[in-house]
Amino acid sequence: MTLIHPVIMCGGSGTRLWPRSRKTMPKPFLPLVGEQTLFEETIARASDPAQFAASTVVTGAAHLPHVEAQLGDAEASIIVEPEAKNTAAAIALAALRLPEDAVMLVCPSDHHIADVAAFQAAAQAAAKLAREDRMVAFGITPTHPETGYGYILQGDPLEGGFAVERFVEKPDLERATEFLAHGGYSWNGGIFAFRAGAFVSELEAHRPDLAAAVRAAVEQGSEEGARFHPAPEPFAQVQSESVDYAVMEETSRAAMVPVSMGWSDIGGWPALRDARAGDDNGNRVNGNAELVDCRNVLVDSDGPRVSAIGLEDVAIVVDGDEVLVTSMDGAQKVGKLSGAARQ
Amino acid sequence: MTLIHPVIMCGGSGTRLWPRSRKTMPKPFLPLVGEQTLFEETIARASDPAQFAASTVVTGAAHLPHVEAQLGDAEASIIVEPEAKNTAAAIALAALRLPEDAVMLVCPSDHHIADVAAFQAAAQAAAKLAREDRMVAFGITPTHPETGYGYILQGDPLEGGFAVERFVEKPDLERATEFLAHGGYSWNGGIFAFRAGAFVSELEAHRPDLAAAVRAAVEQGSEEGARFHPAPEPFAQVQSESVDYAVMEETSRAAMVPVSMGWSDIGGWPALRDARAGDDNGNRVNGNAELVDCRNVLVDSDGPRVSAIGLEDVAIVVDGDEVLVTSMDGAQKVGKLSGAARQ
Repeated sequence: MTLIHPVIMCGGSGTRLWPRSRKTMPKPFLPLVGEQTLFEETIARASDPAQFAASTVVTGAAHLPHVEAQLGDAEASIIVEPEAKNTAAAIALAALRLPEDAVMLVCPSDHHIADVAAFQAAAQAAAKLAREDRMVAFGITPTHPETGYGYILQGDPLEGGFAVERFVEKPDLERATEFLAHGGYSWNGGIFAFRAGAFVSELEAHRPDLAAAVRAAVEQGSEEGARFHPAPEPFAQVQSESVDYAVMEETSRAAMVPVSMGWSDIGGWPALRDARAGDDNGNRVNGNAELVDCRNVLVDSDGPRVSAIGLEDVAIVVDGDEVLVTSMDGAQKVGKLSGAARQ
Repeated sequence: MTLIHPVIMCGGSGTRLWPRSRKTMPKPFLPLVGEQTLFEETIARASDPAQFAASTVVTGAAHLPHVEAQLGDAEASIIVEPEAKNTAAAIALAALRLPEDAVMLVCPSDHHIADVAAFQAAAQAAAKLAREDRMVAFGITPTHPETGYGYILQGDPLEGGFAVERFVEKPDLERATEFLAHGGYSWNGGIFAFRAGAFVSELEAHRPDLAAAVRAAVEQGSEEGARFHPAPEPFAQVQSESVDYAVMEETSRAAMVPVSMGWSDIGGWPALRDARAGDDNGNRVNGNAELVDCRNVLVDSDGPRVSAIGLEDVAIVVDGDEVLVTSMDGAQKVGKLSGAARQ
């Protein structure tokens, strides 16, 4: 069995988990669900040497200290992007640094996956399709009509998966509900498998300028121990585009592997609550707290004791000099708070 | 016009406003409603020298530093109780220290009264009845069927008030609703007017042992500047009983003065919310806070910023290393929290 090359995408920060997630200590590097950080979980679930080669981490200078501290003893190459240019460029950097026949498994570093065995089985199925030069997306079996994700409609069956009939933008609730009733729709979780050379060929076919600029940045780049620095000037010319637009929606070779693996993008406080194990009343407590007559309440305190009475579906987060109290429905507005905006 | 002698009752602590109110800094000494503390408000509203003599403050050793600090330049005698023995004994101490013909106005130190002019007018009406040796209670005109207070049913009219038909213990909601529909029922707010000598006579008639023990404590007590220390040994023999039981429900001379004065005993976080001025959405914010989609929310922070989204009828209190988040309905359980119990 050929080894799979994990490519860990470690960019962006986001404000939806403010005030716990901050610019200086963003989401991937926080122990949000269990003892490990989301980044450490991501590295660990693709670390079995019988299945996986050493990881390639694509990140920016701001996150580099966190990446290196949390990699610990794990063997990894690190590509330090001169600036953030979205996922098509980030994946292309890794593809051009790996052997042409390496099968890449592109993994965001800020997701939680409860069922690691299911993840690994899907990775093997996706790798098999990728070796046939398929552009493969994980299709997460939906558990509810989520409006925050794009969807993938499956087409003809392939060995271990399906061709992609089409990708669908984030739907409204009515359409999401129809998708679940219809069947065959999966969430696009941003996890992909490609043969490196095949990815570069597809990118060159559909986004030749983008591919050429990334190639120049790699050719003129410099190594520094385990770090690789693409050249800033050619990289500055790279178009900022998602891999979904630049490749997945353009290629005729898109495939998907359906998987149900307890996946969450931890896209806000309600998602974090749901990813944590609750007590008999559905409450999730991290830190010093006393809850009375509460249901489905999330408490996350970095120190002060939180006493809560008579609440339902509320998140209470204490972080340094910030206290957030939000209804689960209201949590989508966390990013617009002045505290989150000015952090 | 004879001057009224304010008697400010400054005992007890209570846990219903935890964590803001603590054993070491209890409710009367906190600026809960406005800039002034409740104790300062109490002193100030009975300080007009055209109407009031110097105050007598009855308190315990634990509260003495707060009392003396917050009296500032106000002239006052302080009676330092050797131990807390409830209101009958506390009032008796003051009555025995004042001239027999002094008209006492007994005022708890932890209430808020929005309409000071109405308070003073009622004080004058009560004083007039007290000079005729009536035992006079303020009867607060009820604004809702509150189950947390005792009620007073008025009887025959007197000049400036009414005789008391009867005192009623805290009712359940059904009875409280009946009281409001019936009319003639007022809340017993614990504010009383007595001629000092008349109060002592009534106490001697109905609780002779209690009266004798307090008299012995006063006779054997010692002065220390503005402070008077009743003798601890006789005071230890005093029965702990409320003035309501020991005198008001026993006497044939009970009277009441109806008054509507924006009164609140600030008996918990909902009462404090209602006593504060709200914004257009009914929110009350004290401290650094940002509220989004909130209604009738109370925020009280001693430092950290509080960000709240999508909440209704919730209190959020930050005090040092304690954060309390409670529904208004749940706030009655605040005193039972382990933080409040172990403070």
